[in-house]
Amino acid sequence: MNYLKKVVIVLLCLSFKVNTHAQQHPNIMLTKANIDAVRKGTETYPLLKESYSDIKQQADIALTQAISVPLPADGGGGVTHEQHKKNYNNILNCAVAYQISGDVKYANYVKDMLLNYASQYKKWPLHPKAKQNHQGGKIFWQALNDCVWQVYVIQGYDMVYDAISSKDRSTIENQLFVPILKFLTEDCYTTFNKIHNHGTWNVAAVGMTGYVLNKPNYVEMALKGSKKDGKSGYLAQINQLFSPDGYYMEGPYYQRYALLPFVLFAKAINNYQPNLKIFDYRDKLLVKAINTSLQLTYTDGTFFPINDAIKDKTYETIELVYGLDLAYADIKAEPFLLDIAQRQKKVIVSDAGLAVAKAISEGKSQPFNYVSQWIKDGGKGDEGGLGIIRSGSNEDQQCLLMKAASQGMGHGHFDRLNILYYDNNTEIFFDYGASRFINIESKRGGHYLPENDSWAKQTVAHNTVVVDQKSQYQAKVSEAEKHSPNLIYFGKNNQMQIVSAEETNAYDGVNLLRTSALVKLPHTKKELLLDVFFVNSNEEHQYDLPFWYKGHLIDASFKPKVFTAELKPLGQEYGYQHIWLNAENKLDTRSGYISILNNKRFYTTHFTSESPLTVKMLSIGANDPEMSLIADKSFMLSQPKAKTQTFVTVTETHGNIDPINETVDAAFSKLSDLKLLNSNKNGAEVSFKYAGKSYTYKINYTDQKRFTELVENGN
Amino acid sequence: MNYLKKVVIVLLCLSFKVNTHAQQHPNIMLTKANIDAVRKGTETYPLLKESYSDIKQQADIALTQAISVPLPADGGGGVTHEQHKKNYNNILNCAVAYQISGDVKYANYVKDMLLNYASQYKKWPLHPKAKQNHQGGKIFWQALNDCVWQVYVIQGYDMVYDAISSKDRSTIENQLFVPILKFLTEDCYTTFNKIHNHGTWNVAAVGMTGYVLNKPNYVEMALKGSKKDGKSGYLAQINQLFSPDGYYMEGPYYQRYALLPFVLFAKAINNYQPNLKIFDYRDKLLVKAINTSLQLTYTDGTFFPINDAIKDKTYETIELVYGLDLAYADIKAEPFLLDIAQRQKKVIVSDAGLAVAKAISEGKSQPFNYVSQWIKDGGKGDEGGLGIIRSGSNEDQQCLLMKAASQGMGHGHFDRLNILYYDNNTEIFFDYGASRFINIESKRGGHYLPENDSWAKQTVAHNTVVVDQKSQYQAKVSEAEKHSPNLIYFGKNNQMQIVSAEETNAYDGVNLLRTSALVKLPHTKKELLLDVFFVNSNEEHQYDLPFWYKGHLIDASFKPKVFTAELKPLGQEYGYQHIWLNAENKLDTRSGYISILNNKRFYTTHFTSESPLTVKMLSIGANDPEMSLIADKSFMLSQPKAKTQTFVTVTETHGNIDPINETVDAAFSKLSDLKLLNSNKNGAEVSFKYAGKSYTYKINYTDQKRFTELVENGN
Repeated sequence: MNYLKKVVIVLLCLSFKVNTHAQQHPNIMLTKANIDAVRKGTETYPLLKESYSDIKQQADIALTQAISVPLPADGGGGVTHEQHKKNYNNILNCAVAYQISGDVKYANYVKDMLLNYASQYKKWPLHPKAKQNHQGGKIFWQALNDCVWQVYVIQGYDMVYDAISSKDRSTIENQLFVPILKFLTEDCYTTFNKIHNHGTWNVAAVGMTGYVLNKPNYVEMALKGSKKDGKSGYLAQINQLFSPDGYYMEGPYYQRYALLPFVLFAKAINNYQPNLKIFDYRDKLLVKAINTSLQLTYTDGTFFPINDAIKDKTYETIELVYGLDLAYADIKAEPFLLDIAQRQKKVIVSDAGLAVAKAISEGKSQPFNYVSQWIKDGGKGDEGGLGIIRSGSNEDQQCLLMKAASQGMGHGHFDRLNILYYDNNTEIFFDYGASRFINIESKRGGHYLPENDSWAKQTVAHNTVVVDQKSQYQAKVSEAEKHSPNLIYFGKNNQMQIVSAEETNAYDGVNLLRTSALVKLPHTKKELLLDVFFVNSNEEHQYDLPFWYKGHLIDASFKPKVFTAELKPLGQEYGYQHIWLNAENKLDTRSGYISILNNKRFYTTHFTSESPLTVKMLSIGANDPEMSLIADKSFMLSQPKAKTQTFVTVTETHGNIDPINETVDAAFSKLSDLKLLNSNKNGAEVSFKYAGKSYTYKINYTDQKRFTELVENGN
Repeated sequence: MNYLKKVVIVLLCLSFKVNTHAQQHPNIMLTKANIDAVRKGTETYPLLKESYSDIKQQADIALTQAISVPLPADGGGGVTHEQHKKNYNNILNCAVAYQISGDVKYANYVKDMLLNYASQYKKWPLHPKAKQNHQGGKIFWQALNDCVWQVYVIQGYDMVYDAISSKDRSTIENQLFVPILKFLTEDCYTTFNKIHNHGTWNVAAVGMTGYVLNKPNYVEMALKGSKKDGKSGYLAQINQLFSPDGYYMEGPYYQRYALLPFVLFAKAINNYQPNLKIFDYRDKLLVKAINTSLQLTYTDGTFFPINDAIKDKTYETIELVYGLDLAYADIKAEPFLLDIAQRQKKVIVSDAGLAVAKAISEGKSQPFNYVSQWIKDGGKGDEGGLGIIRSGSNEDQQCLLMKAASQGMGHGHFDRLNILYYDNNTEIFFDYGASRFINIESKRGGHYLPENDSWAKQTVAHNTVVVDQKSQYQAKVSEAEKHSPNLIYFGKNNQMQIVSAEETNAYDGVNLLRTSALVKLPHTKKELLLDVFFVNSNEEHQYDLPFWYKGHLIDASFKPKVFTAELKPLGQEYGYQHIWLNAENKLDTRSGYISILNNKRFYTTHFTSESPLTVKMLSIGANDPEMSLIADKSFMLSQPKAKTQTFVTVTETHGNIDPINETVDAAFSKLSDLKLLNSNKNGAEVSFKYAGKSYTYKINYTDQKRFTELVENGN
């Protein structure tokens, strides 16, 4: 336990001896002292004005509709599910509209809605669609959504508190919020004390409610766990769920989701107990988590879709609007955050949102500072991480991600040393993300589909080596949780940026070591993606390395042998059963290339190896009885039998087509003669020609000072 | 021959008795009298300023590069091909830069380039990549591109004319342009006299060169054909290639391409021989053709991709920049044209571009007036046409197209009564367009692929009925050219817009009659797409009606029987060999539905028929040895054996998902109980329920006054 944590816990112990901060309302995102300023800001600063206008419009629509609080019945995406979601949004929107406009009709709506809930809530049983081994809620099929509901609703209640009679407040508190507190801490005891994002939503709901209702006992439980011993609860979650770099082990999609209760509760803590200095906790962990969330996006705004992820999700998501506004207003006013706020096109109508909107209108915005970085995973930062390499402006950026992180619990994928490659604001080599149609009730209630386990999590669904057609750790989470990859090198020199990592436990007796780099050659606009995947075993194995690509295959060094009259699955299990084998080409040369046209630009991947490879062309869709899979494509480099195997690829980004003007530029790769000169445990040596010049690329796995070298050989 | 044409020909005969308009340079898009105004405009009006800035930038880049005039060797997309394309663009850009900046270095570049061509041109043989039965060029693999080259280059020459010494002019004219004129009129005699877009480019090249070089003989040939009898040449092409509504029979993609030489030559004619009143010719045909080109786009700017079409093509294409600028400046200053000009983001640096940019900067722009209309095909307007129905604003427009046009020569598809449906700025039921990777040399030199014939042109690649798994007219162009569909009805009433057409010759003894409508019900944001396809024969046939869709299948009224372990092609020929059969469902009910999620919105297609149908789920890709096909998907309604068959579908556009906020709205269709009450040669009667109300929809094929009726039945 470090010094700071000790201090905080001492402070905590002290603070609960005395009474909490004198109650005033509102006191979370909007605070009483700032109401006038925010109100003026909604008339002055465009982004705040538009944000409030949206909220008021929605509040006005809510007022035209009869209040509906149906008996909970449906799963995700169903009628009662969506109605209760709508209700918490309406409560919050009307509460904000009340504070800004001063019109009591909005407060009355919130009051009536809450009284309606209060008249029913205690009679509701556990939700009928609750699933086995998954904590059911009362309002929703899972308790998680009940917590989200409460996090929103308690903010709304806080904002209309002064407009409700004490009698009605008493009804609402005693018939609704207190029973909810009881449900969330007692019925959901296990979740409440879990170190997990469900736990975070739960403690945030309980803690924020505790503050607003002035129930310090609940606040203390929320911060330190049911037993108040600090082994669970909010602070334990900050300690354990995030790495020292602010990475959340489940991956960016869940990081974004987990972030909201963290920052909202932090804001409440900061307002009610500023002496706790929660934003400074664990070396300013929360602001790191917010910044890391932003760094885990590509320039199109989408989160890197590693692990279970809905791929359309961007930093426009409300969680990051909250996160960003608070980071800027309450923690550190970095001008590059304003760039993202502008792209989010909204701020929270709040003290923080006022600060952001004001700064933007004063012209303080600067381009967001995407950086290359190694983001450590694990509570102590020693469980691998993510290597992110970027090159180019935010308008046309190359980005390479290597995933060498821990398993990330149940939402993790078996995809160590997977790489993602982006360029031109689009995916080039991509991750499938989750197999799920979120909120689409016809697709298994919007839940994760069976294909999420059988396909999306499997190793072959990723751009990494598969050994013997099996997934890493034989797709067993419990085994995978025990180990994480090792970072070998992350750094740069004049010519390139490099990430290198190894995984030695995923397959018995097989070492996987991958070194990927973005390499700048003279007179090239775009850098080369140079990838050396060294696989080493004492036994013979089959090694497959797929590259899942977007776009269309337009050229290859060989004539593909296509299965024209019949398609069969590539294999039987570990995801192979979901792949159609479209073409198979046993090459007789040691090198070759494949060219893809994607978003009007060319990507040529040259490959070589110790011996000729088999190249397979694949598409997704076999054994998919509910037609749930997306028919994406890949080319797979395959070595049917070898002890040691090195897959070398160089992907050149080149040229473009202009379909409007019907012109084409640099359709052919300038790279040629790719050769693997040698490869072993100590290093690898590769040569190639580019635009008439000859280059040698060396990797020295054991030399941190000269880890890679690129030498021009004359010609 | 109508009165106007007689007058024009009389005028023509007269005009060539006297000398042509006194020579001055430049005198096509830029005219001497307007140079000062355009020059000032490039400093004043933003769109002209940016357009000139682009051109000057490209001209400046050209000046930094050595002039390269390689011996023609490569096909489309190859090095020499692209270099000669670049050269004509550079010539035109530098010529404009000379006129606006007055800097003689740009003129010298053009002079040097042209002298270089002049030193070589006569030695060049016919292009080595010329193809059999296709007129080869000297600079490019096909003469068509030589004509395009000349159309650009002669404009450039016209602009630098006064800056070149008479000696050099003499060299350029005698060693380059005169030989080109000779080549295009003598070696390419057949093309020059063809009523076809290749002919148009040829006569425009010859005619414009004739004007600039003051060679009236060539102008006269260009206008009236080699024999000067008016049976071929420019005026004959205007008469025959366009319908009275300005539709070009090959379809929008080629209409756009054909348009440029038409309007450029028209502009030259108008400047040199204003007495010909060319813009008034054939009841102002040219402006109709320009407007029709724009009406043949969807709100995303893309042309309807019927027949052979590259699908990315939009009205931003340079041909329509020329067309629009001239239409606005020289023909009629419609303010809605300015909207498109703004979306084109450029104007031609010219007299016309000045007028457009000035008007925009004066705030005269109005939203483009997309209209519902029947566009007649055929020189006399009696060869079918296109029915276009639109609903909603340009921001979120529903658009339905029924293709009931003539075959459209060699680029036509066998797709009569095909429908396309657009919504939400995207394709819902789409046309595959051409199978071609234009300018991608690795894909068969960028030419049309074999799959263009074997797949893209075939009936099954379209959303229309296929009889006995064969294409219309057994895919014989010569047969298909003999007939065209008949318009039965095009119109609207209070509730709906309707198009109905029949095709009676495509299949022996089978009548095809389709009636499609966009129908507005009370309280719906979006209209229903109501489609009744009546097929009638005395013999039994198999009838297939595919709907090629974008998006992902997310629900159906039945559980699809999916081929999970093996895929086989759907058939052997007429495109069926390119389709994988993914699922096959012999229904035991007469109606059902399929729901698609596309671009965050739901589309549910309800279907019914006289008897239960088989529904097949299909994807493209079988028998595709070069992996050239795009793996699009469809559901196909199929009746294995029937004499008379009515396919009724109602497609409801509903709800949305918001993946950023993870909400869903109206995921389920409100329509139900779709029934076919009766259907025969006289009409059809369909009933359905929508949002609790019951409706009957009647079609009376023989009653033009009450062609359709929609009656609400209470409930």
